[in-house]
Amino acid sequence: MAQANTPQPPYYAAIFSSTHTGAHEGYAEDTETILELAKEHPGFLGIEAAGDDGLSIAVSYWDSDETIRAFKELAEHLIIQKRGRESYYKSYKMRVARVERDYGFNV
Amino acid sequence: MAQANTPQPPYYAAIFSSTHTGAHEGYAEDTETILELAKEHPGFLGIEAAGDDGLSIAVSYWDSDETIRAFKELAEHLIIQKRGRESYYKSYKMRVARVERDYGFNV
Repeated sequence: MAQANTPQPPYYAAIFSSTHTGAHEGYAEDTETILELAKEHPGFLGIEAAGDDGLSIAVSYWDSDETIRAFKELAEHLIIQKRGRESYYKSYKMRVARVERDYGFNV
Repeated sequence: MAQANTPQPPYYAAIFSSTHTGAHEGYAEDTETILELAKEHPGFLGIEAAGDDGLSIAVSYWDSDETIRAFKELAEHLIIQKRGRESYYKSYKMRVARVERDYGFNV
């Protein structure tokens, strides 16, 4: 995955970190479904994700916290209520943050 | 790496995403040096990191943006000025964000 091209701050970041049970059936499929849904959602600005056997991190960027809340309801309706969060998450934490400044190199 | 135990919001997140040249000499050592330095720094709350061949993401948590700025100066003095950012980063982006709310499961 490449780095996200986000606009000038301020905007919002949904920082989602998770560990997994190892029971990954349906996980890749669900992740893809959520990603496609996000890309079509008004206010979605981009996403960056990386993972290894220990921890997975996905940071999605949005125009506002209201958009994040709306998308959460939509995604939960489609995914989490269907399968149950326990099916592949051992633990997770979502942090919603307002990006105030940024800087970079070659991005 | 485990998930970070952070306090009740608000606090700050430094979201650092990067891609790499493949010239990783000194990278693991420098990362470890910065991590040790961070853990001893007043105002450091925790860190979560994950990476694969494409993108690396490290999110560190701090009590304030002022602390993030202070730590950046310290880290740059020790590491980046010594080796040059071009030595292993193909690109990077740092986003500094104020965490306003969070929720989780088993964390």
